[in-house]
Amino acid sequence: MKRIGVLTSGGDAPGMNACLRALVLTAHANELEVVGFQYGFNGVIEQQYHHLLPYHVNGIIQNGGTILKSARCEAMHSATGLQRAAQNLHDLQIDALLVIGGDGSFRGCVELSAFYNGRLLGIPGTIDNDVDGSDFTIGFATALDTALDAIDKIRDTADAFERIFLVEVMGRHTGYLAVAAGIAAGAEQIICPELASELDLDRIALHVEQARKHRGNCSYIIVLAETMYPGGVSALAADLEQRGIECRAAILGHIQRGGRPVGADRILATKLGAYAVEQLLQGAHLMMAGEMNGQAGLYPLARTGEKKKQVDSYLLRWQQQVAQY
Amino acid sequence: MKRIGVLTSGGDAPGMNACLRALVLTAHANELEVVGFQYGFNGVIEQQYHHLLPYHVNGIIQNGGTILKSARCEAMHSATGLQRAAQNLHDLQIDALLVIGGDGSFRGCVELSAFYNGRLLGIPGTIDNDVDGSDFTIGFATALDTALDAIDKIRDTADAFERIFLVEVMGRHTGYLAVAAGIAAGAEQIICPELASELDLDRIALHVEQARKHRGNCSYIIVLAETMYPGGVSALAADLEQRGIECRAAILGHIQRGGRPVGADRILATKLGAYAVEQLLQGAHLMMAGEMNGQAGLYPLARTGEKKKQVDSYLLRWQQQVAQY
Amino acid sequence: MKRIGVLTSGGDAPGMNACLRALVLTAHANELEVVGFQYGFNGVIEQQYHHLLPYHVNGIIQNGGTILKSARCEAMHSATGLQRAAQNLHDLQIDALLVIGGDGSFRGCVELSAFYNGRLLGIPGTIDNDVDGSDFTIGFATALDTALDAIDKIRDTADAFERIFLVEVMGRHTGYLAVAAGIAAGAEQIICPELASELDLDRIALHVEQARKHRGNCSYIIVLAETMYPGGVSALAADLEQRGIECRAAILGHIQRGGRPVGADRILATKLGAYAVEQLLQGAHLMMAGEMNGQAGLYPLARTGEKKKQVDSYLLRWQQQVAQY
Amino acid sequence: MKRIGVLTSGGDAPGMNACLRALVLTAHANELEVVGFQYGFNGVIEQQYHHLLPYHVNGIIQNGGTILKSARCEAMHSATGLQRAAQNLHDLQIDALLVIGGDGSFRGCVELSAFYNGRLLGIPGTIDNDVDGSDFTIGFATALDTALDAIDKIRDTADAFERIFLVEVMGRHTGYLAVAAGIAAGAEQIICPELASELDLDRIALHVEQARKHRGNCSYIIVLAETMYPGGVSALAADLEQRGIECRAAILGHIQRGGRPVGADRILATKLGAYAVEQLLQGAHLMMAGEMNGQAGLYPLARTGEKKKQVDSYLLRWQQQVAQY
Repeated sequence: MKRIGVLTSGGDAPGMNACLRALVLTAHANELEVVGFQYGFNGVIEQQYHHLLPYHVNGIIQNGGTILKSARCEAMHSATGLQRAAQNLHDLQIDALLVIGGDGSFRGCVELSAFYNGRLLGIPGTIDNDVDGSDFTIGFATALDTALDAIDKIRDTADAFERIFLVEVMGRHTGYLAVAAGIAAGAEQIICPELASELDLDRIALHVEQARKHRGNCSYIIVLAETMYPGGVSALAADLEQRGIECRAAILGHIQRGGRPVGADRILATKLGAYAVEQLLQGAHLMMAGEMNGQAGLYPLARTGEKKKQVDSYLLRWQQQVAQY
Repeated sequence: MKRIGVLTSGGDAPGMNACLRALVLTAHANELEVVGFQYGFNGVIEQQYHHLLPYHVNGIIQNGGTILKSARCEAMHSATGLQRAAQNLHDLQIDALLVIGGDGSFRGCVELSAFYNGRLLGIPGTIDNDVDGSDFTIGFATALDTALDAIDKIRDTADAFERIFLVEVMGRHTGYLAVAAGIAAGAEQIICPELASELDLDRIALHVEQARKHRGNCSYIIVLAETMYPGGVSALAADLEQRGIECRAAILGHIQRGGRPVGADRILATKLGAYAVEQLLQGAHLMMAGEMNGQAGLYPLARTGEKKKQVDSYLLRWQQQVAQY
Repeated sequence: MKRIGVLTSGGDAPGMNACLRALVLTAHANELEVVGFQYGFNGVIEQQYHHLLPYHVNGIIQNGGTILKSARCEAMHSATGLQRAAQNLHDLQIDALLVIGGDGSFRGCVELSAFYNGRLLGIPGTIDNDVDGSDFTIGFATALDTALDAIDKIRDTADAFERIFLVEVMGRHTGYLAVAAGIAAGAEQIICPELASELDLDRIALHVEQARKHRGNCSYIIVLAETMYPGGVSALAADLEQRGIECRAAILGHIQRGGRPVGADRILATKLGAYAVEQLLQGAHLMMAGEMNGQAGLYPLARTGEKKKQVDSYLLRWQQQVAQY
Repeated sequence: MKRIGVLTSGGDAPGMNACLRALVLTAHANELEVVGFQYGFNGVIEQQYHHLLPYHVNGIIQNGGTILKSARCEAMHSATGLQRAAQNLHDLQIDALLVIGGDGSFRGCVELSAFYNGRLLGIPGTIDNDVDGSDFTIGFATALDTALDAIDKIRDTADAFERIFLVEVMGRHTGYLAVAAGIAAGAEQIICPELASELDLDRIALHVEQARKHRGNCSYIIVLAETMYPGGVSALAADLEQRGIECRAAILGHIQRGGRPVGADRILATKLGAYAVEQLLQGAHLMMAGEMNGQAGLYPLARTGEKKKQVDSYLLRWQQQVAQY
């Protein structure tokens, strides 16, 4: 193995740069060349790339975003696109391709493997933490603290006005971020896909009323995962107001994606970046380099999207119960 | 003068607690009692209050929100309400009332003066910085840094995807926060009431296209003051997309109100709190304690809402011109 | 079981308040009274305590320090002191005592068990992460990010001047914090107890020179655990300068102990607080409630100080190798 | 005027990059070329420079440090060095040189003017705020918030242990940073050059004892400017302990220099950078572009070191008086 390619794909996540740094330094220590493709898989298809040397990744460990840029790539959904990607990798003599992204990007890898005869390895980078085979994904810890900073600030205003706030947190299909942010913020309610069956206006309203009975007037924060309520937090706010429960809505939105990675994300990104290159050298293929129980390990790329990983339902139910006191 | 009252009114602003601390400590040093009314003017009308001693304000200099709570107060818009407030202040032997809030709260003070024969003094506390008679209001510096943190994070994602973002910043009638945050974030466009005459979809789109011509694809951020575009940022995003300019919208919302006050706000709050009590003792009445050109000074409460204070139009136009390079 | 006692002991750690909140709310849900002792074990011996009700812990999840205060307690090193503590617990009808602290505090628990016939349970709270039986201790994640913020800032100056900095991080006996902060900051060298055998001035100097040979002049940061070098970082700086390597020393010191807890610490603190109360109710005694591999579990208090937990030596050696490129 | 040079000199300060960005963009808008010299005046003497184009300064507004690097320059203290600098500027056809730094760097400019016949302009960039002719220097606001974050964290531990802390803040000759940080942190004592006459161990100890008499045991923080006490904070701590006042010492050190600039610094840096280029075009020479009373203006470089600017002695004395309650 002489030359490897790397790209970042899907939503950007804090720590992607730290991971690129570790990849490039480890490759350099092992006398591997690194080619960085830009704009995710588009860079492979459109041949937009440049060599990555240690000095390119010097000082990027602390930067959000990704120096390789990212993008969705429609072309990867067609055989023509996949073939072209494989051909370009072959022409550039790329012996292996490393993809930092989420399970959608990993599906792309699996499909690419039908056309490309080099090795393919994934590293989980997404703020959503919704990838099987790794306890945490690169970016999740930072996104949690960003959401938490925001909710703590909202708490100040909620306290000052003894007001109810609905806060929408990212996470299209899974509630990791909403659950973690809600518990860490001491939110009075957390509404997430994992409790979808309990998503009932009566129940939400009742919990508010009970809390106010126990504690008198007080601030009250409901953390809600994206797409949980038809029409979003504004619709929920409107529906609650119809029941006499006045509340304000806040959507945290894209601020959750960026920012300096926190220590946990930098360490995870560094560990997985170094580990992935070493595993490549030892023949790993169609695997994801993840971390489980504190140990780096491999997990089949094809199974990263099975959604077996669960949010901490113990804490989730605990919070629902006690937050009213 | 033996006993003074104090309340916080209108939107909460970081630094209100620091101001309360300075007020109480200065009053204590001058052997004045302090009565803290809760929920803004409602506390005066409903007689919700407690004595504030130095130990109550110990350690609050760094906390967002307000320990006195805040609220809008409908009753203050009627003669009955004003009369009741004045009567309660009289009954409680409050020789002077200090109000920390915005120009709306100060209008309430002026109206109260028709019924109340104690002294009335205001201190400007609002993140909007839209009060005449003080270069800065308590809370503005913190809100600026909160907005800036958010926009910096959005910049990471905008850079990674070379994407256009619309970011809505608070400021109902004035663009101080939008202009300051936009300039400090290096935003490519700033849309604010002060440039309302230039709010033209063609012009906005043209600027985007010019920047992309000069710089190639790149991130591009438009900072927008609240209420500037009919339908808000989402409507603007939709209108731009109709012209082939794809963009994402983000509303910073209530996170801008809370949080630990930054140094500048704590110092301003401390200075104005101490100064206000000293001026009360020297007979000030119907004045606001503000800071101009670095010096604490008095300004007539009745004139604080005249909207003579201007955003920095030099920097605003400079930014519009150069940000495209 | 009707009444439990709780105290925080040893160095304060961010998240202790979050843990107290979870404890009190869980106890309340289980109809247990909670007595909070002040100043660590001193409060038991001197009978300084008060009841903790839900409203006492409302809103403290985000605060650093500990509302119960902390202190070292000499008296607990004598049989007289232990006896007195046991007697007071008995007199106050405390059925169980929960101690949030480090392994030193847990030794105190074990000794107290010879005199006290209630149950004793520990929860690991210390920024040092040097407690066996829990992958992480409450406070470590926050201290890591505090150290990292500081080192990132030092990096700016080190880059601007292409200068060498020595940064001393807390951790009297173990290098968890130094290793984690060093890796996350991309430090060029990490000097910690775990690599004590390699602590050699020649070796340190050689690594600096190699890095400068590879990269040209550049910033260079050495992260050092407390007590690693006789005389501290200033002595090391002086010794390096004698070899012609000019450097600056920085001691992060007590800033690492305080601050708002990050999400990871709040969640860990909440989980362990709730779990500890539930385990108490099920009869746990002389155990520590910790978290291993993401699961809350019990571990014998008597073994928490055996120092079997290891820093990540893989990453540590990796960093030493690649950071010179 | 066709080509201007720019350099950053002296200690780095957050906002220097924001200033460089504004300079380069404004120069570009006025069709001026910009040459960036590296390592302060050394770059002029050693001919280390490169052209600065808009894309070089894109995205640096939020970065600490300085992309031009900085350094002290011994050579500028000799006629030979000054002559060489002037000759190189002449050879490179630099019509004017812009220096971002402190009053020491400005003295260098004044001396250079004896040899160089282009224009010379300064912009105040230093965290010390000790430059006459500008109310604030670029970097001060950020350093204040960095110091404040650190002191707030120390307060948590001081509160938890009811302990006394001595915190040393940067500022070799002036106490701006110590006074501002001390007031904003609610420090119980502030020891700065401006109160040097009051630096008396008896007085310091007495104030501690009075506070403890008024408030009972409590945390107590003394903020001290660098070089105020012979032997530094450690010596003061030792001397206080000899009087039975146990305390801990913390030196904030170099963390105060780096970091993302806060909004106030970015705006000031942007304003002064744009203004300086415009004034150059209008013939300014041997002046500093500063801001007084919110307005950009020129001030003679030769007078920037006269030390006429005063700390806010009103607030300083107020704090000393009331902080004991």
